[in-house]
Amino acid sequence: MIYLDNAATTFPKPPQVTSAVQQAILRYGANPGRAGHKMSLETAQEVFRAREEAAALFGAPGPEDVSFVLNCTQALNMVIKGTVKPGTHVVTSCLEHNAVMRPLETLRQKGIITYTEAQVVPGDNDATLDAFRKAMQDNTCLCVCTHASNVWGIRLPVERIAALCHAYKVPICVDCAQSAGVVPISMTENGIDYLCAPGHKGLYGPMGTGLLLAQDGSKLDTIIEGGTGTASESLAQPEGTPERFESGTINVPGVIGLRAGITFVRSKTTQQIYRHESELVCGLYDKLKTSGKVTLYTPRPEPPYFVPLLSFNLPGKGCEEVAAALDRQGFAVRAGLHCAPRAHDFYGTLNCGTVRVCPSAFTNRSQIDAFARTVVRIASV
Amino acid sequence: MIYLDNAATTFPKPPQVTSAVQQAILRYGANPGRAGHKMSLETAQEVFRAREEAAALFGAPGPEDVSFVLNCTQALNMVIKGTVKPGTHVVTSCLEHNAVMRPLETLRQKGIITYTEAQVVPGDNDATLDAFRKAMQDNTCLCVCTHASNVWGIRLPVERIAALCHAYKVPICVDCAQSAGVVPISMTENGIDYLCAPGHKGLYGPMGTGLLLAQDGSKLDTIIEGGTGTASESLAQPEGTPERFESGTINVPGVIGLRAGITFVRSKTTQQIYRHESELVCGLYDKLKTSGKVTLYTPRPEPPYFVPLLSFNLPGKGCEEVAAALDRQGFAVRAGLHCAPRAHDFYGTLNCGTVRVCPSAFTNRSQIDAFARTVVRIASV
Repeated sequence: MIYLDNAATTFPKPPQVTSAVQQAILRYGANPGRAGHKMSLETAQEVFRAREEAAALFGAPGPEDVSFVLNCTQALNMVIKGTVKPGTHVVTSCLEHNAVMRPLETLRQKGIITYTEAQVVPGDNDATLDAFRKAMQDNTCLCVCTHASNVWGIRLPVERIAALCHAYKVPICVDCAQSAGVVPISMTENGIDYLCAPGHKGLYGPMGTGLLLAQDGSKLDTIIEGGTGTASESLAQPEGTPERFESGTINVPGVIGLRAGITFVRSKTTQQIYRHESELVCGLYDKLKTSGKVTLYTPRPEPPYFVPLLSFNLPGKGCEEVAAALDRQGFAVRAGLHCAPRAHDFYGTLNCGTVRVCPSAFTNRSQIDAFARTVVRIASV
Repeated sequence: MIYLDNAATTFPKPPQVTSAVQQAILRYGANPGRAGHKMSLETAQEVFRAREEAAALFGAPGPEDVSFVLNCTQALNMVIKGTVKPGTHVVTSCLEHNAVMRPLETLRQKGIITYTEAQVVPGDNDATLDAFRKAMQDNTCLCVCTHASNVWGIRLPVERIAALCHAYKVPICVDCAQSAGVVPISMTENGIDYLCAPGHKGLYGPMGTGLLLAQDGSKLDTIIEGGTGTASESLAQPEGTPERFESGTINVPGVIGLRAGITFVRSKTTQQIYRHESELVCGLYDKLKTSGKVTLYTPRPEPPYFVPLLSFNLPGKGCEEVAAALDRQGFAVRAGLHCAPRAHDFYGTLNCGTVRVCPSAFTNRSQIDAFARTVVRIASV
């Protein structure tokens, strides 16, 4: 099986991730930060190393600014709901995943907030920035947007959007679901207040890991409170991070595996991973385009305007049907809306969905070439 | 090292849990419910089996009533915050963990709710029940209480409290943090509306797994929304469970490991685990009591009034100091408040904390005997 569903979760994981998870269960099996015995302290130390690794990758001020949560969705909910107050306004983009849109829409339905979707213009960052500027209101309390669309790969100029937000004194939260581990980003250099990322996609950690990085987490209200192993005499949630956002026991084996994943990414470098995967996707794009039998929506997905993933359709065939045919030929891809209906509106594919293909650091040219040939063959049937 | 910190997390895990997690990463590495390809479907199937196993253990109506979340704390927050409305009242007990108290206190501080702590009377379930009855108000919207205190092991008569709640038409949520996998419970037979449990304690799954079981989850508001892989065209969170409570990618390796853990518990039976661990703790209690050198707070922790764990102190010694001495002698226990200050108020130990010891299904008599001897020796120094 050639796995090209890496935008949903990367597979395979590097062998060092698998063995780190196993070691975590066998050796670091105590609850970290909950006791003073040797194994608990050693486990806490391993978790701390994962924070250091994540802080280094994302340019966070320090390891304590890295909180481990269940997934990127939870991190986004924590930032959005920890920021908004009744009567405030949120700026977002027109390409967001339901991890952003459903919380915003829920808050809107409850009459708590309003929000505006800024129109992204692929390949024209000035126009995109202008749209974000126009979306700002006096009561805007947060800008939350994706670093790159999970459907189209379109990358947003978040560094410039962050500068804009700072001029308006509005904090910015970036959803790095599809960019973490692929596109270099620095929270401190780029002025990103909150960065949310999944651990199990481009960071090659196990599913069940997500990251919330906050430059000043004490500013956020909490949506989940509970035992933190700190200040236990108080019924108030601690202000300091990461405890503030880590109520209850964290996913220790997942986090220790994630550390191995981030180490893998840092040793390869995001720059090199980005280049490798983009070359594969651009090569695929060219082959599909040349065939004349495939509906492509975006321009050629080149850096820096795109992250390496591609959505397409075959004329006269449903996307599910195409994905099923590919599955029978040994290719794993995802068909449908990819939990991002607003993004599908962008190219008018809300009614039909798309077939989405995404390589990983382990994908090679011959696999992509075989995939392209198979797509063209299916298109011809 | 003799590990007796099983109330924080069980260690070791059964070998089949470790290998299930490894298999999950190597074989079931796709995102379940997100695609139609073979590995995604097979992964979803494994996750479904975990739901079936959990539903069977807890007597839930069906596997779809089992949602997998990060931890028990998250599940409790989801029930509490998904139920309360401004101006309502919550009944809880005087023995709760911060996983219940901090959410309640946060809501109280915000002026959203009031709450009453019913006084538990160990060994007198009639008196406990009476306290819960008296705590009920016209605006009570939820009763949330622990199945058993994580500090004292005191077990609450949740079956009778559930019957009382139903008479008052108030839903009940039981925090099974210390009882899941140890004390038999049936949601449907006992009328438990919501059951929250950690996967990594008495269920022997990996850390990073928690369960929210709901007889009718659609009644709960959500605190986290996002992509569910279902009804993706809608910006509204789905009503059906488990999707309603599983936004974003779940902890697939953890859940597959948890399934192996629950299978282990079900094959041993909770009845037998409860008996085995209670015998160990009662034996320990007797030895410490006989020594005359150990401060014990509770009556002898026998079933059905207690779950098998024990808190104690040594006169003239701080609990941290005792735990450190035990650690040097090769025993892992936890000292402090165990994230449950209200429970410590119960026996007046808020200022000093306790040393807590808790066996698992793997603990044997000779380990407990060695522990007792070591405690008595430390007390004599």
